[in-house]
Amino acid sequence: MEPNHEPSSDSYAADIASIRRAQVRIEPFAHKTPVLTSKTLDSISGRKLYFKCECFQKGGAFKFRGACNAVFSLDDDQATKGVVTHSSGNHAAALALAANLRGIPAYIVIPKNAPKCKVENVKRYGGQVIWSEPSMESREEIANKVLNDTGAVLIHPYNDGCIISGQGTISLELLEQASEIDTLIVPISGGGLISGVALAAKAINPGILILAAEPLGADDAFQSKINGRITKLSEVNTIADGLRAFLGDLTWPIVRDLVDDVIVVDDDEILQAMRLCYEILKIAVEPSGAIGLAAVLSDSFKKNPSYCECNNIGIVISGGNVDLGVLWNLRGRDPR
Amino acid sequence: MEPNHEPSSDSYAADIASIRRAQVRIEPFAHKTPVLTSKTLDSISGRKLYFKCECFQKGGAFKFRGACNAVFSLDDDQATKGVVTHSSGNHAAALALAANLRGIPAYIVIPKNAPKCKVENVKRYGGQVIWSEPSMESREEIANKVLNDTGAVLIHPYNDGCIISGQGTISLELLEQASEIDTLIVPISGGGLISGVALAAKAINPGILILAAEPLGADDAFQSKINGRITKLSEVNTIADGLRAFLGDLTWPIVRDLVDDVIVVDDDEILQAMRLCYEILKIAVEPSGAIGLAAVLSDSFKKNPSYCECNNIGIVISGGNVDLGVLWNLRGRDPR
Repeated sequence: MEPNHEPSSDSYAADIASIRRAQVRIEPFAHKTPVLTSKTLDSISGRKLYFKCECFQKGGAFKFRGACNAVFSLDDDQATKGVVTHSSGNHAAALALAANLRGIPAYIVIPKNAPKCKVENVKRYGGQVIWSEPSMESREEIANKVLNDTGAVLIHPYNDGCIISGQGTISLELLEQASEIDTLIVPISGGGLISGVALAAKAINPGILILAAEPLGADDAFQSKINGRITKLSEVNTIADGLRAFLGDLTWPIVRDLVDDVIVVDDDEILQAMRLCYEILKIAVEPSGAIGLAAVLSDSFKKNPSYCECNNIGIVISGGNVDLGVLWNLRGRDPR
Repeated sequence: MEPNHEPSSDSYAADIASIRRAQVRIEPFAHKTPVLTSKTLDSISGRKLYFKCECFQKGGAFKFRGACNAVFSLDDDQATKGVVTHSSGNHAAALALAANLRGIPAYIVIPKNAPKCKVENVKRYGGQVIWSEPSMESREEIANKVLNDTGAVLIHPYNDGCIISGQGTISLELLEQASEIDTLIVPISGGGLISGVALAAKAINPGILILAAEPLGADDAFQSKINGRITKLSEVNTIADGLRAFLGDLTWPIVRDLVDDVIVVDDDEILQAMRLCYEILKIAVEPSGAIGLAAVLSDSFKKNPSYCECNNIGIVISGGNVDLGVLWNLRGRDPR
């Protein structure tokens, strides 16, 4: 059994070796997700795009990779008492599913304002839902109470070496599926996904460009990169409910060193990208999942110095857990 | 160059040999579409389900397979004058795209009530749209006028050996992707899709069960099988805009002989299946495309004599060209 923060040669919380071990560990459980392409979107963007569709991952999002790696990294004594987390949704469902597969309890603290479909996923996978107020303080307080009551292990949604390693398996798959990729665009929130993806991708191809896609209303990573330190925001406001978290002390060093730039897009650009995912790619994508496409189509990307270096762009479609109502909002913004 | 109605050993309009030739012909152009599975839907249906996702085919529907085979079967002299068809949508877009790939004109007669997204697909692929009234008489009259004016070749949406052969390539792929499949559920309208799928599947595995899925408001295949002859309806009424055509003289003998049964479902069952495709499978599916899932979940299937013989069911998700408004209808039928 490895500690959750396994040591690495770079002093990061994960490395290519821990990511390769994660791949072996989760392989019996996780889907190898398909890569979709579209001549229409290539034509719109002026680039060749490869969509790594984690909306087809178990639980409907990439989060299952990290959660599965974390749960199956626990030794039997730890595992018996179960796992606990507080999450806005996809990590919660993923952890419930992974715990279910191992046959251990999952205690999931969920803020009352979480999207209904995400809460239903947690219940469907056998997780025990414990409600909190929306604030991070309330979520942490309730999670700590559960920890004390049960002796379960806290599995943080992103600030955790096993989680980062699990998410990094995306790069191992994607760069095998489309080795011509020279750029990856990855949603950024707490940084677990992009940290794993960047560590693995740069180990395989040191010249690969890693771009983060971040909503304007929660652009803490953009600010952090400018300021050279973790910068939290006093409030966040974006439709992308999966991208409201801030960088952690384990993800920040990786984001600082390995993420080449952050592309910031607004909610309208995200909604337009959701529509294109639906109408052109034929996939159900949550707002957070569509942000990579929003970024590649944005004016700010076209003005970015890296724009001319990108030819074959891998875009991580991070998840597809979306209430139908969000699509109605899309429709309401367009008279057709 | 083969004639469009190539002779076959069975005196059907196509056979396994013509389908294998079609596979070679379209391979440089068509996507090999992924097969999705879902433990949740397996659990709801009580069967192991394999979804062959033709919504990810070029043009957003299986129709590209047949259209591509037909267009690339033309000799150069024929091809130069272009192709013409009248279609409610997906065949039209597919033919426009295939013609575009060969660099020849495509004249597309479209009824004025066709879904907007399907018309846009035709235009996007460079097809020349010619409007008709919704009636079949008007569509045929206008198509004949175009034929006379241009000398183009009429490519019928389904009553055509090359079209049937192209659609049959789905079985070649699917039974390689999931050889354990013992049953196929396939949407039926004019019968081009299910004819090709049945011919190829029964050639590979004579014991495989072929079930058609048909909307209650356009159940001409169900009636035809009962009556032992092509039975047209005086009117059709279903949300599944791709399933309103009647069997043709080339598809009927194949449907009569090789389709084991027809499962009839109503529009509410189709809408519910669309919702499940969206929320569980994370794919955008048009009503016609969701009917296979509707069938496998229907009470009439559970009462069907073949129900107990089915364990591993391949479901052809025929297309994903859907206006967002249809999803709003879904939402309107459920208060959540």
